[in-house]
Amino acid sequence: MTPDDFRQHGHALIDWIADYIEGVEQFPVASQVQPGDIRASLPEHPPAAAEPFTDVLADLDRVVMPGITHWQHPSFFAYFPGNSSYPAILGELAAAGLGVQGMSWVTSPACTEVETLMMDWMQELLGLPAKFLSTSAHGGGVIHGSASEATLASILAARWRATGGSINTTGDTSHLVAYATSQAHSSIEKGLRIAGIGTAQLRMVPHDGSFAMRVDELERMVADDIAAGLTPFWVCCTRGTTSSMAFDRVGLAAEVARRHGMWLHVDAAMSGIGALAPEHRWINDGLELADSYCTNPHKWMGVNFDCDLFYTADRAALLGALSILPEYLRSAAAASGAAIDYRDWQIPLGRRFRALKLWFTIRAGGVADAVEMIRRHVALTQQLAEWVRLDERFEIVAPHPLNLLCMRLTAGDEATDALIARANDSGAALFTRTVLDGVVACRVSIGGRTTDERHVRAAWQLLQSLAGEPT
Amino acid sequence: MTPDDFRQHGHALIDWIADYIEGVEQFPVASQVQPGDIRASLPEHPPAAAEPFTDVLADLDRVVMPGITHWQHPSFFAYFPGNSSYPAILGELAAAGLGVQGMSWVTSPACTEVETLMMDWMQELLGLPAKFLSTSAHGGGVIHGSASEATLASILAARWRATGGSINTTGDTSHLVAYATSQAHSSIEKGLRIAGIGTAQLRMVPHDGSFAMRVDELERMVADDIAAGLTPFWVCCTRGTTSSMAFDRVGLAAEVARRHGMWLHVDAAMSGIGALAPEHRWINDGLELADSYCTNPHKWMGVNFDCDLFYTADRAALLGALSILPEYLRSAAAASGAAIDYRDWQIPLGRRFRALKLWFTIRAGGVADAVEMIRRHVALTQQLAEWVRLDERFEIVAPHPLNLLCMRLTAGDEATDALIARANDSGAALFTRTVLDGVVACRVSIGGRTTDERHVRAAWQLLQSLAGEPT
Repeated sequence: MTPDDFRQHGHALIDWIADYIEGVEQFPVASQVQPGDIRASLPEHPPAAAEPFTDVLADLDRVVMPGITHWQHPSFFAYFPGNSSYPAILGELAAAGLGVQGMSWVTSPACTEVETLMMDWMQELLGLPAKFLSTSAHGGGVIHGSASEATLASILAARWRATGGSINTTGDTSHLVAYATSQAHSSIEKGLRIAGIGTAQLRMVPHDGSFAMRVDELERMVADDIAAGLTPFWVCCTRGTTSSMAFDRVGLAAEVARRHGMWLHVDAAMSGIGALAPEHRWINDGLELADSYCTNPHKWMGVNFDCDLFYTADRAALLGALSILPEYLRSAAAASGAAIDYRDWQIPLGRRFRALKLWFTIRAGGVADAVEMIRRHVALTQQLAEWVRLDERFEIVAPHPLNLLCMRLTAGDEATDALIARANDSGAALFTRTVLDGVVACRVSIGGRTTDERHVRAAWQLLQSLAGEPT
Repeated sequence: MTPDDFRQHGHALIDWIADYIEGVEQFPVASQVQPGDIRASLPEHPPAAAEPFTDVLADLDRVVMPGITHWQHPSFFAYFPGNSSYPAILGELAAAGLGVQGMSWVTSPACTEVETLMMDWMQELLGLPAKFLSTSAHGGGVIHGSASEATLASILAARWRATGGSINTTGDTSHLVAYATSQAHSSIEKGLRIAGIGTAQLRMVPHDGSFAMRVDELERMVADDIAAGLTPFWVCCTRGTTSSMAFDRVGLAAEVARRHGMWLHVDAAMSGIGALAPEHRWINDGLELADSYCTNPHKWMGVNFDCDLFYTADRAALLGALSILPEYLRSAAAASGAAIDYRDWQIPLGRRFRALKLWFTIRAGGVADAVEMIRRHVALTQQLAEWVRLDERFEIVAPHPLNLLCMRLTAGDEATDALIARANDSGAALFTRTVLDGVVACRVSIGGRTTDERHVRAAWQLLQSLAGEPT
């Protein structure tokens, strides 16, 4: 492809993306294909020679589009907000165009320094504790690809601190015990398992009626484990659980953690960005006592996936767990201590220039756009809750302080399951199912960049129309 | 940003990228800034309101460019090939524009199925064993972000198999022992450490004069560990080590691995793509006996970072290690077994539509482009070696079958270090230093998409001009 070809096809692709995003409502929200359909529409073997790029672009419509579940559709109410924005797309494009690799400061200083500044900007915009600033004595932040990686990094830092660093040599995790609720994200159990902390070493702390951690039970379980000669080393509080958006009380859990020398991680992957709006800054309650924290601009800030903010108050533990310095990665800048090498703050070695999409979004989109969007989503969720309360066939099954509403049919699990399946099959909206204390619920996650009242109203009318007779 | 703004700024950014790539030779290869310089040229606090995108684009030139070490510069001879290409950039743009998340088949079937097909296409293009095909009885492949993650996934699968799956519950790694040479990538030790396999459980197998693993020593160490009651569970052979591009003999190591039930992982992150050229298919020797394998299109195939191909012959072990299925991620398609959920093949949950950039590259760039590039790099490396042999001040310190040449000044380590520093400071080229068996060497990695004889000749003349008098 010549540079002129690239300009021509690049312009066409930019226009294709704008057409796609502006026209996304014409598509069914969820892909309607069956397993194997997409592959069957492509050649089983690679082409022998280069093809015209126009053919490739045409295949985006012909082949790819039928297999897309449209996360940017305003009637996408599934999983979690995954909203994107035009400035973020351009940020991703700029990163791809530069083609640099930011594993070390020296491999492209701008890649590291813009990222560090973005982490500090986000600390300010979210109102996070100053101990997470890069300029603080012991803390700092880094962009990870996902909250899963942030969780794992937190576990590894905690593991290192709890063993005085000996874990790096001995690999001995046999005495370590971790704590979370059954409502914590699956990446908690997965991260622990990866780190050699088996499920027998993960305590599921009971939750209360709001699906938040019972800290009295945490205290009791920690005491039992200590009495048994074990070492409680890590507790995860979630601020906005995936199933129902429950909020563990960080301050209370932190007291237990402090008393017993445990690392406290706060997972706010889904909801933390809500703190951009000052009235939702309660999301941060207790964070001043946390050892690490993560939240995702790729969920609720219009920064397309992947962009997770991971902060720690103890960077020495993180570096202790993850630094390895072979000869071919040494540099004078890093040796002097003046520069950050982010490869030592994450699981992989290589890294893209992800800070660009955050920088572009904050500057060109303005935080005001994100705040307006967050407020709109929260208001729509409360509006939906009012409608649901007026229909006796439905009940709301969890608190809904922000932008997730969990509801069910009073007719029971089977009816609720059937309702979700029929609604999703319609293509007019997409919801996710969950189970809360043994009861099936329909999650309505309101998080699309362009989701407005008409979409939520239509979604509710869809659910009502499919709900059947009252029991 | 309105859709029309996006079109306008998107076209401008496409043109900016073409101008950058075509004009990259005007820049010094390595950024000349000092730590803190880039940050100091940006506001310490986020903007209160949205700024014109033209200001953002202008800052790419004003602020970012001085802090870029140009991986796409034809005189970039540092680290490893990190070449990109126009079709791959467009693939990344398309993925960002679609804004979908491919954690499960159902969250966008095309994201999964195009990826599966690309893994099968690459098996064919590289001439890899059929047991790695998605259509094989027990194997399959997935795109990871980096070889670090592939290595870790391999370790976790091996750990699961060696413990009969009990690792997920007990976290007990105390009896497990792993093997690699000191020339293996740092991600090996890092991955093991993450998995709770301490450095005391990693055996550094001695290497021979070509920096390849001494399999007789592997055999001896494994026997010693078994005699000591330990469980050898994982051995890593590298096909193209980072320091000197050495090739461990997979077939011989596999015999040892098979005999003792160990998992054999082959790390060909840097060199494996060379097998696109039929005359270099020897890189794959012994792979039919490996349990897992990885190589990076983001190194030597013009697919921009991140794109690592990870294949396994035992997907059950991989899934055993990494599957976790919470209620909110269940789907009928996955439950039926007809669909792949790639979240269970990797460390994080979320994933971008990375297959697009590989698909775009293969189709629009054609594999012929990559093969031509690989052949050019190998020929240039051999040409450089001939020149070096004619200058008695220099010596070549390792075999150089492909595109990496390690050389040093016969005057010694200090002189070689000084030479590398002066050459890099010139901005005319960039090299990396390494240490091979205690001796400092200058690595010349020839891997730029546009690197041609004139660049290699100029680099050599630069080194000669700075080498000083013969000793």
